[in-house]
Amino acid sequence: MSKGLFITFEGGEGCGKSTQVKRLKAELESRGIEVLLTREPGGTILSEEIRRLIKDQEEDAPCDRAELLLFLAARAQLVRNVIRPALAAGKYVISDRFSDSTIAYQGYGRGLSLDFISAANDFACEDLKPDITFLLDVDPEVARARMRSRESATHTAADRIEKAGEEFHARLREGFRALAAADRERIVTIDANGSPDEVWNLISNILRKVIR
Amino acid sequence: MSKGLFITFEGGEGCGKSTQVKRLKAELESRGIEVLLTREPGGTILSEEIRRLIKDQEEDAPCDRAELLLFLAARAQLVRNVIRPALAAGKYVISDRFSDSTIAYQGYGRGLSLDFISAANDFACEDLKPDITFLLDVDPEVARARMRSRESATHTAADRIEKAGEEFHARLREGFRALAAADRERIVTIDANGSPDEVWNLISNILRKVIR
Repeated sequence: MSKGLFITFEGGEGCGKSTQVKRLKAELESRGIEVLLTREPGGTILSEEIRRLIKDQEEDAPCDRAELLLFLAARAQLVRNVIRPALAAGKYVISDRFSDSTIAYQGYGRGLSLDFISAANDFACEDLKPDITFLLDVDPEVARARMRSRESATHTAADRIEKAGEEFHARLREGFRALAAADRERIVTIDANGSPDEVWNLISNILRKVIR
Repeated sequence: MSKGLFITFEGGEGCGKSTQVKRLKAELESRGIEVLLTREPGGTILSEEIRRLIKDQEEDAPCDRAELLLFLAARAQLVRNVIRPALAAGKYVISDRFSDSTIAYQGYGRGLSLDFISAANDFACEDLKPDITFLLDVDPEVARARMRSRESATHTAADRIEKAGEEFHARLREGFRALAAADRERIVTIDANGSPDEVWNLISNILRKVIR
């Protein structure tokens, strides 16, 4: 195999991405495939520093435009130094969030120019696109219940973005759905309201058709 | 006075900007004008954190595209939270570097797309432009001598960008000159090869025509 496969997971808070990402990694590795797992923003030393600025900067928190540009800076570094080399080495790369999240969160959520975000995404990624994207779509009530139970289980507070209001999360979902409608070839929408096993079954059904 | 004045200083390493910036601040304050002095990247809590990532990140230093996007993120925050409010309050704002540096360093110096940088600059600044820009132009030998004497006087090492090679600094100078040629209305080129007093005389001659 000369080139790997680039798989991304997208969706709003509480959609259950992280659980499915781990499951997919385990499944691929059990088949002898080398997998690189990464997350956005993050995945390199620099990008994790940037993640800290985006998520935990309480004093002088990033304004909307600075936030967008920080996400893109973290992505540029991740693509250049981690994702591209791994794909070139024939690995499968799974990313917990990627470009679509920026369009949904900063475009639909915060109302920044979709045209600029699209051009800036292409610039940051040097035009790299995922081979397949799983969009985990979940009803708002289910998402809220999951986030509450996560907070109480891990004794952690929601971060700056997770705490954004209901209207914001509604625009986000609308954004993800619009993206999926515009690119059915790449983006597979998964009903993520069920149990982790149910969601995994949906994903692995798709996987059968994709993996060589 | 309903609105302040936005003055920027530009030029390559060792052009003597910082000395002249302080001098201009003192001069304006002696006339009873309220002055806000800032620098790029930096000038807010978040932007100074970003400055640290750009300048001092030795392990996993930013790739060219990440570097550009970090500069722009720092600028977006500075414009939104510091420069615009100060101008609206009638202050004079002096910035040690601004958008022109990004075009010269990341465009001409690093070879990134000038069209993208220009669009991204406008996005980050929400279209704010300086009222007047002093470009301090200095011969390469003079710049090198000044940088050497600064390093030995302050016992500090040059940072990642200051250490870039001669060819890089030559492209930079070409970039600044092209910018000045394209916008003679805003950008005033100052021969900065002379002593601090000589350079200041050139600047204060221009100033007389500008300050109300």
